[in-house]
Amino acid sequence: MSSLLQLDASVRRRSFSRTLSAHFADQWKAAHPGGTYRYRDLAAHPVPHLTEAWTEICDAVLSAGITDPGQYPSVVATPAQQAAWAVVEPLLTELVAADTVLIGTPMYNFSVPATLKAWLDQVTFPRMSLRGRRFVIAGARGGTYRPGSPRAPFDHEERYLRDFLAGHFDVEDVVFVHVELTNALVDPRLADRRDAHESSLAAALTRIEEVVR
Amino acid sequence: MSSLLQLDASVRRRSFSRTLSAHFADQWKAAHPGGTYRYRDLAAHPVPHLTEAWTEICDAVLSAGITDPGQYPSVVATPAQQAAWAVVEPLLTELVAADTVLIGTPMYNFSVPATLKAWLDQVTFPRMSLRGRRFVIAGARGGTYRPGSPRAPFDHEERYLRDFLAGHFDVEDVVFVHVELTNALVDPRLADRRDAHESSLAAALTRIEEVVR
Repeated sequence: MSSLLQLDASVRRRSFSRTLSAHFADQWKAAHPGGTYRYRDLAAHPVPHLTEAWTEICDAVLSAGITDPGQYPSVVATPAQQAAWAVVEPLLTELVAADTVLIGTPMYNFSVPATLKAWLDQVTFPRMSLRGRRFVIAGARGGTYRPGSPRAPFDHEERYLRDFLAGHFDVEDVVFVHVELTNALVDPRLADRRDAHESSLAAALTRIEEVVR
Repeated sequence: MSSLLQLDASVRRRSFSRTLSAHFADQWKAAHPGGTYRYRDLAAHPVPHLTEAWTEICDAVLSAGITDPGQYPSVVATPAQQAAWAVVEPLLTELVAADTVLIGTPMYNFSVPATLKAWLDQVTFPRMSLRGRRFVIAGARGGTYRPGSPRAPFDHEERYLRDFLAGHFDVEDVVFVHVELTNALVDPRLADRRDAHESSLAAALTRIEEVVR
């Protein structure tokens, strides 16, 4: 049975990344009427930052050479570690159970928002593989970072997530769909790019429909 | 008069990045007996995530073409925006007042910790320049990411901060000092790298002394 985990990281309730991720989720639900769907809003209900007890669990996992997340509870010992694990466990369970992970996220300051990084930091353990899963990143950014554009070298969002998902989670099936130039709607200096933003949005919504499966 | 703002982002109380940043701060205080020193522990007292009201302030700053942080309060209007500004204002004041910003930070999952990104997201506004300031990043990472090493392409911490500080804040004077292979102390598979870790720590402490000014 198919299962989708959707995360949204934008602190804006009305946001372009949320529009894209919702569009993907709608299409996915239509394509998988019996599928399992989980939703988590990382901005409305932020995942807490790591604690020192979390690092103790992580060190114990590393020290014991544990790679199966099902074995992590075996090293959780102190009350502080149990409290840390109570935060991780539901996040990890829904992540491992998903075969598609959909992340709606804006670019903030050339990278992922702190809300998304807080989730990533909580669920990532040494040598933990998510091989075979699919990640879809539905993104929005204020400017344009297309290959060849002056700002392309500053895209530390897509490049980071691509390297992290492949290099740490061993995930090869990663799809990025971005709406660009969202700042054209508020920045007078980008007023002449509003048409380009509109085109980018239309193309992203079409692309979302193409990549759903 | 010289002024130093020190931030620490590690969730570990005993951490290598804290050891390095404390070493820098000690040397700096000795060199600047009359200097101003501010300290903020981003892990012990995390900066909250952005709120929607923060994005409203940011949009208003962008829309009005404001580039001087001293003018931001002029666009703060609603009670929610005032609450958002109450979070930003002390962070921004101490950042703008510093001529050296020292950041003790580990690499988490190939990038900066969520604790540091939460601070960065709060203090970063459109076209805000910190030109003329100096940033010193005292870092620690579990593996080795030296140029030429297999993991070098996965260093999204130094590369990100370098591009962000130059590309957004217009800061050219950025120094990175890293302790590497901290995982060698806990990971049996890295046990043969403990000497390399020890050498890295000694070299980093020496390097800190060289770059203090």
